[in-house]
Amino acid sequence: MKYTHHNNELNIKHIGKEVYLKGWAAKVRNLGGLIFIDLRDRFGITQLLVKPGNAFYETALKVRNEFVLEAKGIVIERESKNSTIPTGEIEVEVTVLSILSIAENPPIIIANDTDALEDTRLKYRYLDLRRPVMQNFMIKRHEITQAIRSVLVEEGFYELETPILGKSTPEGARDYLVPSRLYPGTFYALPQSPQIYKQLFMVAGFEKYFQIARCFRDEDLRADRQPEFTQVDIEASFVDMDDVQRIVENVLVKTFKKILNVDVQAPFLKMSFQEAMEKYGNDKPDMRFEMLINDYTTYFKSIDLPLFHGKNQVRGIILEQGVVTRKRFDQLTEIIKKNHGDALASIKYSEGQYTGSIVKYLNETELKGLNLKEGNTLFLVPGAFENVSSSLSALRIELANEFNLISENVYKFLWVTEWPLLEYSEEEGRFYAKHHPFTAPVDASILKNDPKNAMAKAYDVVLNGYEIGGGSIRIHSQEVQKLMFDTLGLTKKDIEERFGFFVDALKYGTPPHGGLALGLDRVVMLMTNTQNIKDVVAFPKTQSAKDTMMQAPSPVDNTQLEELQIKVGK
Amino acid sequence: MKYTHHNNELNIKHIGKEVYLKGWAAKVRNLGGLIFIDLRDRFGITQLLVKPGNAFYETALKVRNEFVLEAKGIVIERESKNSTIPTGEIEVEVTVLSILSIAENPPIIIANDTDALEDTRLKYRYLDLRRPVMQNFMIKRHEITQAIRSVLVEEGFYELETPILGKSTPEGARDYLVPSRLYPGTFYALPQSPQIYKQLFMVAGFEKYFQIARCFRDEDLRADRQPEFTQVDIEASFVDMDDVQRIVENVLVKTFKKILNVDVQAPFLKMSFQEAMEKYGNDKPDMRFEMLINDYTTYFKSIDLPLFHGKNQVRGIILEQGVVTRKRFDQLTEIIKKNHGDALASIKYSEGQYTGSIVKYLNETELKGLNLKEGNTLFLVPGAFENVSSSLSALRIELANEFNLISENVYKFLWVTEWPLLEYSEEEGRFYAKHHPFTAPVDASILKNDPKNAMAKAYDVVLNGYEIGGGSIRIHSQEVQKLMFDTLGLTKKDIEERFGFFVDALKYGTPPHGGLALGLDRVVMLMTNTQNIKDVVAFPKTQSAKDTMMQAPSPVDNTQLEELQIKVGK
Repeated sequence: MKYTHHNNELNIKHIGKEVYLKGWAAKVRNLGGLIFIDLRDRFGITQLLVKPGNAFYETALKVRNEFVLEAKGIVIERESKNSTIPTGEIEVEVTVLSILSIAENPPIIIANDTDALEDTRLKYRYLDLRRPVMQNFMIKRHEITQAIRSVLVEEGFYELETPILGKSTPEGARDYLVPSRLYPGTFYALPQSPQIYKQLFMVAGFEKYFQIARCFRDEDLRADRQPEFTQVDIEASFVDMDDVQRIVENVLVKTFKKILNVDVQAPFLKMSFQEAMEKYGNDKPDMRFEMLINDYTTYFKSIDLPLFHGKNQVRGIILEQGVVTRKRFDQLTEIIKKNHGDALASIKYSEGQYTGSIVKYLNETELKGLNLKEGNTLFLVPGAFENVSSSLSALRIELANEFNLISENVYKFLWVTEWPLLEYSEEEGRFYAKHHPFTAPVDASILKNDPKNAMAKAYDVVLNGYEIGGGSIRIHSQEVQKLMFDTLGLTKKDIEERFGFFVDALKYGTPPHGGLALGLDRVVMLMTNTQNIKDVVAFPKTQSAKDTMMQAPSPVDNTQLEELQIKVGK
Repeated sequence: MKYTHHNNELNIKHIGKEVYLKGWAAKVRNLGGLIFIDLRDRFGITQLLVKPGNAFYETALKVRNEFVLEAKGIVIERESKNSTIPTGEIEVEVTVLSILSIAENPPIIIANDTDALEDTRLKYRYLDLRRPVMQNFMIKRHEITQAIRSVLVEEGFYELETPILGKSTPEGARDYLVPSRLYPGTFYALPQSPQIYKQLFMVAGFEKYFQIARCFRDEDLRADRQPEFTQVDIEASFVDMDDVQRIVENVLVKTFKKILNVDVQAPFLKMSFQEAMEKYGNDKPDMRFEMLINDYTTYFKSIDLPLFHGKNQVRGIILEQGVVTRKRFDQLTEIIKKNHGDALASIKYSEGQYTGSIVKYLNETELKGLNLKEGNTLFLVPGAFENVSSSLSALRIELANEFNLISENVYKFLWVTEWPLLEYSEEEGRFYAKHHPFTAPVDASILKNDPKNAMAKAYDVVLNGYEIGGGSIRIHSQEVQKLMFDTLGLTKKDIEERFGFFVDALKYGTPPHGGLALGLDRVVMLMTNTQNIKDVVAFPKTQSAKDTMMQAPSPVDNTQLEELQIKVGK
């Protein structure tokens, strides 16, 4: 390559040197005839100087923002230095300047700060990605991916590819389908995960597999979901739960050290699913702050309080310090209700006084018995366990954000363990797999005789209130796998058609195996400190699964549909 | 992990040591009461010994091939050593043996040599992949991928992901379509390559991008084609053709050194497309042997030979030594005809005699003028340039294989350059892009005024007769891109609907850029010395695009089609 330097490299040591640079005109100024051009590439900015009389002065006059340039010149010391960039002490006095490409005025400003709406940013994603802050997200994603991969390769994992054109096995989320042209009326499906393939790699004896795998779910999108997403898919043979957890901890500890220079403590904390629900109200507790949920059910048993009448449970959290106005209390009540809570009550203790909606129902002993300290506010929610949990969980996070209880740049990892194997859907009168139907039960005889109480060899890894990965030891016995499908209500025919080959595969000597999948997009999001998953995906879809840049999905030629022998319409 | 060694690790130095192993029973023998079990894992085999009287003798008696076992024991010296495996001097006398998983008799033999048909191998792919030779293909693929990636990362390339759910832009091969549920009647398309995305990365200023990218083409399959395949997709800004070629050479030289310990000479040879067609008859010459095509058109101008009457060209190749029987000559004529040649003629010189189909038409001077040496056979094909080329190309390879003219373990790389930009389809009365519509012309004014003669800034990299990669410098000017689409006969509306956003993107300061894509499957196939692309793909489709293991494509539930609002049928 003919260029001599990137635009972050030149400094006082290069003075007098002839250099050859290229990049984009980030800013052009004409100060009393002196033309200054900030030349930007992916690494940084170098200031070019073109004086009147320069043979390329006319060229320089034509340069506008975002023109692509190459320039030769001599490094000289700047008069007014800029200490905010590495090249701020020098500038390059141009001897040759060429415009490689001109540019119209871009529809969004190419700078870290933008007031462009997300719609505009996505439509002109190629310009949005030109903003240094966005480039940094992508570069960090690259670096994180390399770091994760290098740990796994070092540990003897093989990176093996699995098909994107797979088979539809609707259990869980909706599949994206791909009509087959050669067999009209039949379809491939895009994989929701390489789950079956990676287990087959274990059957095949590869022992340690991973893949940075693209996965697809045709679900209604939430803020942190995309129709396609990337997971670090890991599977190993001859392992138990602890082994898999050690592997994943090793990956995360080394990656956080390499990328963020953060020392993560391992082994990570562990908490049972049940404890997480009781103390944090959800299965992915944010451990960066306390404010645990306490159970006041017994306490209020003997107190006649209409709001709590006939309620299974009363649980609550204590805000140690902070003022919650009447209006704010009403908003918090709304949050409780939105999250399936029945009601919100509060008691505040301050300067010897108890205030709040339910104080009048309690006598002094009862109030004192709550052990509130100066400034404490106790928030109480009555109701069924699940509803109290989900609503207090939401309240806890809301209050933590409002009162700045969450330390920044702190990374609290947690294993959530001891999951139930199944969930029972009252509506449909059947069991669903809490994780997926390949998760091993702790005890197969309980799965057989008392499925409601069957526990799973499953574990989620949680970071700062986000589930960043989930895994399990898998069923490796054909009988147990059949029992599992049976329990899920699949008929013999279902099993045969959907999973026949897989059940078959288990009978030829399947090693015990297990694994985990890390959500790469989420990991990158948390490591780059952004809230929006779209920031860490180069070409994301909108909330409604559209690519507004390319205009996809789009109508196609009739000949294409004819070849596939499909028709559009209800 | 509780296991102490892999099954390739133990040797004479470990004698007396207690070890803990796991793996599959590759072979079980009972020799006069002594039970020997070859324990196999992904690294190798260790022999277990269980003597009568051992507490686990009963367990050992139950073991059959492909049972999954773990065993503790003491390393002892073998009586009869086996020098073909690293652990051949020792065996492990078992102290504890557990069966982790039983196995039915597998439908294919788990050994390098198999007589199983491809159908059976694909149906039981998880067992086929258990064969050491197949494991090696996958492991080599893993290693090659890591090697390629590490060179690119070292060179400052960012590995960036692009969407799989893209937009259909039918130009070239057929797209796989994915119906959208949220926008009934519209479709995503699976990418034939990340071409547009990678160019947008250049527009966005990333300068150096790569991706190990999955690509999809719904084409009728040939032996070395799969509906989905993997390419090493590379793009860089501010580069010319030489720069891209240096990058790719660097990748290949380092990868061949690391994986095969082969020193590849770089820069690679270069040959124009025209020269390749003239001398080798195709655009991906196998340079491991000579047997060049010579032009005899002028030579035969003055000779009255009915077979050559009215033919544009007569070209031929010389087989230096070898006997071609009359019967074989007829077979070769069939090969010529299958490859669009008009006819085959031959003249052999041996022991002062000329023999062959057309000898009678030439006088002695004319025969001598052919300069044939002792044992030479000249094969001649008359006809149009393309037909003579394609048929002589096939003949050349056929003869080289038959007479063992191709050295094994030799890697001859070649750049094929100076490609025409366009191909004219007489049938459709329009131009097609020889590579793709984003390839830069050498001279845009020739594209405008004389498109038939426009040349492309394109280059293919060829290895041993296979095109393993193709690339080009891309169009970075909006005007030239529009001109290209115009020349291809796209209407304004077409351009707008299919590529509007892309033409748009070019106007905001697009750097000169170019790149290349390496066919990873082919590279792995050549490096592992197999002829079958399916051998290097973990879960390939059949020739007719079926996954016979999973039974995909398959019918889907009606509810799925209803949600998508599509119907099956003409």
